[in-house]
Amino acid sequence: PFQAMEPKKTLFKGVIEDFRGRASCYKQDWHNGFSSGFRILAPTLYIFFASALPVIAFGEQLSKDTDGTLTTVETLASTAICGIIHSVLGGQPLLIVGVAEPTIIMYTYLYNFAKNQPNLGERLFLAWAGWVCIWTAVMLFLMAMFNAAAALNRFTRFAGELFGMLITILFMQEAIKGMLSEFSVPEGKDQSLPIYQFQWVYINGLLGIIFSMGLLYTALKSRSARSSLYGAGWLRNVIADYGVPLMVILWTALSYSLPTKIPSGVPRRLFTPLPWEPKSLQHWTVAKELFSVPLAYILLAIVPAMMVAGLYFFDHSVASQMAQQKEFNLKNPSAYHYDILVLSFSVLICGLLGIPPSNGVLPQAPMHTRSLAVLRRQALRKQMVRTAKEGMMNNASSSEVYGKMQEVFIKMDDKGNEDSAHKELKELKDAVITEGKKITEGNGAVTAPEVFDPEKHLEAYLPVRVNEQRVSNLLQSLLVVGCIGVVPVIQKIPTSVLWGYFGYMSIDSLPGNQFGERLQLLFIAPRRRYKKTGSWGEYSSVLILDRVLEGAHASFLESVPFNQILAFTLFQLIYLLIVWGMTWIPVAGILFPLLFFFLVIIREHLLPKFFDTRHLWELDASEYEECEGVHRDPSIPEGDGESITRGIEDPSEYTAEVMEEFTTHRGELKHRAPSFRDERLIRLNSVQMTRQFSRISSFAPTRP
Amino acid sequence: PFQAMEPKKTLFKGVIEDFRGRASCYKQDWHNGFSSGFRILAPTLYIFFASALPVIAFGEQLSKDTDGTLTTVETLASTAICGIIHSVLGGQPLLIVGVAEPTIIMYTYLYNFAKNQPNLGERLFLAWAGWVCIWTAVMLFLMAMFNAAAALNRFTRFAGELFGMLITILFMQEAIKGMLSEFSVPEGKDQSLPIYQFQWVYINGLLGIIFSMGLLYTALKSRSARSSLYGAGWLRNVIADYGVPLMVILWTALSYSLPTKIPSGVPRRLFTPLPWEPKSLQHWTVAKELFSVPLAYILLAIVPAMMVAGLYFFDHSVASQMAQQKEFNLKNPSAYHYDILVLSFSVLICGLLGIPPSNGVLPQAPMHTRSLAVLRRQALRKQMVRTAKEGMMNNASSSEVYGKMQEVFIKMDDKGNEDSAHKELKELKDAVITEGKKITEGNGAVTAPEVFDPEKHLEAYLPVRVNEQRVSNLLQSLLVVGCIGVVPVIQKIPTSVLWGYFGYMSIDSLPGNQFGERLQLLFIAPRRRYKKTGSWGEYSSVLILDRVLEGAHASFLESVPFNQILAFTLFQLIYLLIVWGMTWIPVAGILFPLLFFFLVIIREHLLPKFFDTRHLWELDASEYEECEGVHRDPSIPEGDGESITRGIEDPSEYTAEVMEEFTTHRGELKHRAPSFRDERLIRLNSVQMTRQFSRISSFAPTRP
Repeated sequence: PFQAMEPKKTLFKGVIEDFRGRASCYKQDWHNGFSSGFRILAPTLYIFFASALPVIAFGEQLSKDTDGTLTTVETLASTAICGIIHSVLGGQPLLIVGVAEPTIIMYTYLYNFAKNQPNLGERLFLAWAGWVCIWTAVMLFLMAMFNAAAALNRFTRFAGELFGMLITILFMQEAIKGMLSEFSVPEGKDQSLPIYQFQWVYINGLLGIIFSMGLLYTALKSRSARSSLYGAGWLRNVIADYGVPLMVILWTALSYSLPTKIPSGVPRRLFTPLPWEPKSLQHWTVAKELFSVPLAYILLAIVPAMMVAGLYFFDHSVASQMAQQKEFNLKNPSAYHYDILVLSFSVLICGLLGIPPSNGVLPQAPMHTRSLAVLRRQALRKQMVRTAKEGMMNNASSSEVYGKMQEVFIKMDDKGNEDSAHKELKELKDAVITEGKKITEGNGAVTAPEVFDPEKHLEAYLPVRVNEQRVSNLLQSLLVVGCIGVVPVIQKIPTSVLWGYFGYMSIDSLPGNQFGERLQLLFIAPRRRYKKTGSWGEYSSVLILDRVLEGAHASFLESVPFNQILAFTLFQLIYLLIVWGMTWIPVAGILFPLLFFFLVIIREHLLPKFFDTRHLWELDASEYEECEGVHRDPSIPEGDGESITRGIEDPSEYTAEVMEEFTTHRGELKHRAPSFRDERLIRLNSVQMTRQFSRISSFAPTRP
Repeated sequence: PFQAMEPKKTLFKGVIEDFRGRASCYKQDWHNGFSSGFRILAPTLYIFFASALPVIAFGEQLSKDTDGTLTTVETLASTAICGIIHSVLGGQPLLIVGVAEPTIIMYTYLYNFAKNQPNLGERLFLAWAGWVCIWTAVMLFLMAMFNAAAALNRFTRFAGELFGMLITILFMQEAIKGMLSEFSVPEGKDQSLPIYQFQWVYINGLLGIIFSMGLLYTALKSRSARSSLYGAGWLRNVIADYGVPLMVILWTALSYSLPTKIPSGVPRRLFTPLPWEPKSLQHWTVAKELFSVPLAYILLAIVPAMMVAGLYFFDHSVASQMAQQKEFNLKNPSAYHYDILVLSFSVLICGLLGIPPSNGVLPQAPMHTRSLAVLRRQALRKQMVRTAKEGMMNNASSSEVYGKMQEVFIKMDDKGNEDSAHKELKELKDAVITEGKKITEGNGAVTAPEVFDPEKHLEAYLPVRVNEQRVSNLLQSLLVVGCIGVVPVIQKIPTSVLWGYFGYMSIDSLPGNQFGERLQLLFIAPRRRYKKTGSWGEYSSVLILDRVLEGAHASFLESVPFNQILAFTLFQLIYLLIVWGMTWIPVAGILFPLLFFFLVIIREHLLPKFFDTRHLWELDASEYEECEGVHRDPSIPEGDGESITRGIEDPSEYTAEVMEEFTTHRGELKHRAPSFRDERLIRLNSVQMTRQFSRISSFAPTRP
């Protein structure tokens, strides 16, 4: 996925390359999907639920902010239409598109601006927004033409995590505002209605607290079901994968178990006109009104269009990169430039239909790839385990067993060649061939290594393979179309449940955001934070790696002096508060994305003046680097920081960096990657760990 | 504390011995208290809050169950009076007394019986209850006379944990019943009052859910504050020690932040007449009515009296034992027999005053000792650290340093003699004197052991010393007297907060109850429960020790076949349900304690017929035994199970066993003991652990 990164001069060069690349495997994209039969439904459903729920939530937010001009119907429609377009015509079929938070924020600005303009007003709002989309489409087209995607690596994690944090704050703000609104009569309603008597409104508010807190708590709990000790494995996985939608259903059901004395309308439920009501239908003909918009406003639309285009270009590409990370070992080429071209068209269509446009969404995109990787893995693993067991039955030597497994792997792995396989299977090989290996213990005892166990070791060592295809993406888009059909069902969800869901999205977006982790660090009692004294230092830093920071990128703790971490973090915090404050400014607020583009300049020219480039590197480099940050030879990061961060030495690293950046939108990736890794390590270290534990318990004081 | 265990023939032998023993150190009991000055206030406050809150909660429960005949005022009065009596005249001053759940249950039976008797009715209820107390006092007197305490070791953990579980269930039942009651008009109130309109009652119910759930959640969270990473150490400790009362105050304060439109009386608050109202005052003259009770009922009172006496005898002694466990290294003698005599007098007094009697309470009793141990420890540690540091300054050899520390220890440790000190300081010595020791690592590398660090190692190795005195007990009783003065403040607590508190007590009582842990075990997916295959078996059992079972007594997992564990646990469960069912029977229910005395027979004569004695031993033996269960030479527990469990070989073990039993009332001890131990082990293993962790992280896959 990295050739996109080299700067290109010729017009459309990137688009054309991408197109050729994807065309070569287009047929196969469909074939792979259909050939895997019904099993493709699992990832499809998984992604559908993961992307439909936010779209519904954003729809409700949008209808609250636009006085019902745009509702869940429109957000769903946009997600469905763009999804179908992308899954059929798009470049990277693993990328999932949908209406995202930035779109909602932008449209809220547009609406608030438009409704106060005598020459626009609510009537021409959609037409004007249409013009914004048209201009956005034009700019995206130009970006594709000039191969802009090559510039992505200018953005470091620094900017990305700031954006992630902003989203976190905005979600929480939405959740709190929503919950408070349950305690007051909605605007524009007749105060004198019996249902708006104090006690009913108050009951509505209290139920609001119970439902939203209940959803928040149960949703957060369900996330950790996979590692729970109770219940059968399949059940734990179902709850972990579909827990959040399940909880929404559960709490909605509970909201119908209230005593009958309570008037209908308490608790309040989703406000969404039915798609077939005239109110919704009028949107679709907004194109006719395009030219009723005064010229001045048509030109003015260029300003917001620049912001939207900037955000989309960035969001879309990063989501795409997250779906194509190295760890997935994708075989098919990427299509950053071409996808931006496709995006520009779908934005145009949405504009003309008077619905908010969609773009690549996080964390759904990487979730999609991951679920397909699991699917593929099962098939591979099944075969190899069988072979291995056969081998062991006829007690073949472990090297023979390994040989057999390798054969199977190479045979099944399309496009996989011998030596790449050799490389990828190295760890497995070591695990299988254990002759003559010995483990020396702390107490000097010598014991044999763990015996080879096909299930366990294949699970741990089998290289990742993804079932790359377009079917799951298309199917989930069609399911979203289905949602529009069942709006009457969606209307049954209490609004308070959605506020709880916003709270969930906010909290769920934190883990893995190094900025957030550094903020937590500031609140840790110094004694516990870090100590340099011998084993104690080691221990407490381990404690922190383990508990505050994701193990992966904590090396900065070892190598950067705390006051530097502090300064860097506070600067980021203040900048964040400025951006947040900016979003509160009525009209000019729409320019808040500019602050993020400033960050690129600040990062490249200002920060190096205040921070040691080595430290900057540690605090703002790719996860990949930091994985082995501690063991790394310090001579490497020497020299001028800009050139490093601009990534001249090895562009691939900096793709990893850009990938890194936006994981933190919802932190989904961070959630999984470690869990993947850890499970595997626990397996491999089970022997040592057991020894460790028994050593501990043997310390237990026994009464004389 | 174990001489109490040997059977005694001569009348009052035990009482006299105990009295002599305590008399010898009576003066000192006061002197030690006053000499430690203001620092004694910390444990005093700690225990006061820990014992006042349940007493208030039980008071509310009692006033609900006795239609307000007995309220919080009476439970507080009883706790205060008996507390003062015990702290001044009692034998073991570490024992904390108060009105406990069994008393409430019994009094509820008495009330329900009395009010339906034409010749008693509510009017004579207290007088009749007075007779029950009189008979109870007589029986306790006889028990003291016949040295009954010697028989305590007949009760194994089996019975104790069953009782603990029953209490857990009853607490939860109370919490749920209470929360539901918030949704309905309280009995005997005028339905037509405006405040009992549907919407206000419903608002009261919803607020009830929010307050009780809020208290439950925050109280449970505050419990784990000590190990939290955030905030200063002292703050974490304050929250961990006083979190629950703080949360009660917090949620009570919140209950006053409601909008003014809500009528007073929503949410409902504690129903407690002021002590100086005539309604409360009439109780105190109940003695005058004693003989208005018909003779038949006076005699009938013997039946409940037997039950109460049985429960008190048991509860009181076990609480006392929990407060004198081996690990506390108490220097002063125990006084089981004498304390039962004192108990019989205080029961008599309570009966004549028409208030429910008090007895030894868990977990407050062991909490009290522990807080005093910490107090004493600080003093010792301060001295020894100073000496050690001085030594290290003048870089003395580590053996010299140790010598100095030992001197200080022996000097400060009153009643401590040389060789006991030698024994107790063994571990410390090893830690200090590390010359020539080497640690060989898994990878064969050889490294120096951890350097001696006075703070850390003394914290870890200093033997426990308790500041044994009567002052803290007396002061906390006086503070309870103070509570009666501030009933108007207590009245401000919303009832729903108390229901949440009952839920907290219920959940808080589970950890450490091996029966409860075995129940959980049944719900664990078999794959995760236990596997015999090599390192995997080890690993998963470790996983369970670590996560389901308290590390201390999980050896049975290794040694008892699962179907035996299953059978044993199911039997216990069914028996539990029978007992619980019994408590629901209106009048006969009062006999439920009988079922526990049956258990002794069942355990000794029935169970060995169905279970391998070895397995019974594992499942129902003292914690002490199980600590090293795995490594233990299997030949030891061979032979006839009864004789073992009857504890002929070594009575001391069985004291430990009886101690073990009732910790699980609230699990407090189990909470602390491991944490004590673990912290220490983490410290000591910090080196190995760090290596462990770094080994793990070095496994992390790095991109090519």
